Amino acid sequence: MILCDIGNTTVDWFIDGKASKQSVDNFDPHLYTDKVCYINVNTKLSSLLGSLDHWYDISQLVDRDKYYPTMGIDRVMVCEAISDGVIVDAGSAITVDVMCNGHYEGGFISLGLRSAQEAYRQLSPALAESFNFEVDLTIMAKNTPDAITIGFLAPLIDKINSLGKPIYVTGGDSCLFSSLLPDVIMDDHLVFKGMQKLIEKGQLC
Amino acid sequence: MILCDIGNTTVDWFIDGKASKQSVDNFDPHLYTDKVCYINVNTKLSSLLGSLDHWYDISQLVDRDKYYPTMGIDRVMVCEAISDGVIVDAGSAITVDVMCNGHYEGGFISLGLRSAQEAYRQLSPALAESFNFEVDLTIMAKNTPDAITIGFLAPLIDKINSLGKPIYVTGGDSCLFSSLLPDVIMDDHLVFKGMQKLIEKGQLC
Repeated sequence: MILCDIGNTTVDWFIDGKASKQSVDNFDPHLYTDKVCYINVNTKLSSLLGSLDHWYDISQLVDRDKYYPTMGIDRVMVCEAISDGVIVDAGSAITVDVMCNGHYEGGFISLGLRSAQEAYRQLSPALAESFNFEVDLTIMAKNTPDAITIGFLAPLIDKINSLGKPIYVTGGDSCLFSSLLPDVIMDDHLVFKGMQKLIEKGQLC
Repeated sequence: MILCDIGNTTVDWFIDGKASKQSVDNFDPHLYTDKVCYINVNTKLSSLLGSLDHWYDISQLVDRDKYYPTMGIDRVMVCEAISDGVIVDAGSAITVDVMCNGHYEGGFISLGLRSAQEAYRQLSPALAESFNFEVDLTIMAKNTPDAITIGFLAPLIDKINSLGKPIYVTGGDSCLFSSLLPDVIMDDHLVFKGMQKLIEKGQLC
């Protein structure tokens, strides 16, 4: 089975249990003759993908009433992968979602690590520092890099821990987050697991 | 006594218990013939202010060993105003500092409300929403404005509350923050109170 997650800048593949990535600029869906199950947030490619017989849009299989209308399809997919837990998708934004016995309880969206550091940089040259991922997030800071790291990460990590459920971490910054959250389950393929679950339910592909 | 807090864009005055503000563009320190006690972060004005006999730089009275070297003088002043408590200065950045029996315990720096909203906007047009200050911060969100509001504010408010001390709020967004924090002490003049305390200790002006 070929799974494909199409974003605005990259295309992620999951073929026979192996993940790979390519730039959207080099992406030509005509090259694939096998059936491909996909999700897509790239509006420029929607018509083309919709016109190809062997490309199946998995988003059609989602019971959208479980979620809210403007919720991104990637975020829906990571939720579909987990029936009970907190799912942290640490990418350009950090989405935090809560699933409880297969029901979506809601979530929130924080800035991503790079986005937050850029926002500090834009506030003041004095705050144009890199986060210090070695800092103890339970203390108060006495220097600028620690002050912005603790200011951004400590409240977020505390909030995620306070939700009292198993924590699953995925996304490009998952390694960094898993080092900050104890007993976390790191899984870089949650979006594909969600797609697979939906396909199995819908008997598609 | 005339107190003056000089920033990069505005100059704040505190004269006979009354606060006022002016643009730095219209600021001419020669116009004042009475003694003025000031703090200044505007490097363009440092030499001029230093050359005027009746302008006293209050930052000289601070025991800088209590704080850290790169800590802003405005932030030091609000700490000097409080001997025991958490001080939240909600301006372009949100600084949170902890004082314990007159000792500085450290703090952290969050993005300001406008800065955070701008960072969400830059991340994605889908996140270019205004914060919803009516939202219940204790729940998980099921729409985008609530998701970014809870994502930014709920962890921060929880963290401030968890510090377990009386909370003092100052700065331009103090009203908004005081509505989110129960039993908070709102004080728009903390920076001037800190200056006054230092002056009384130092017998200056």
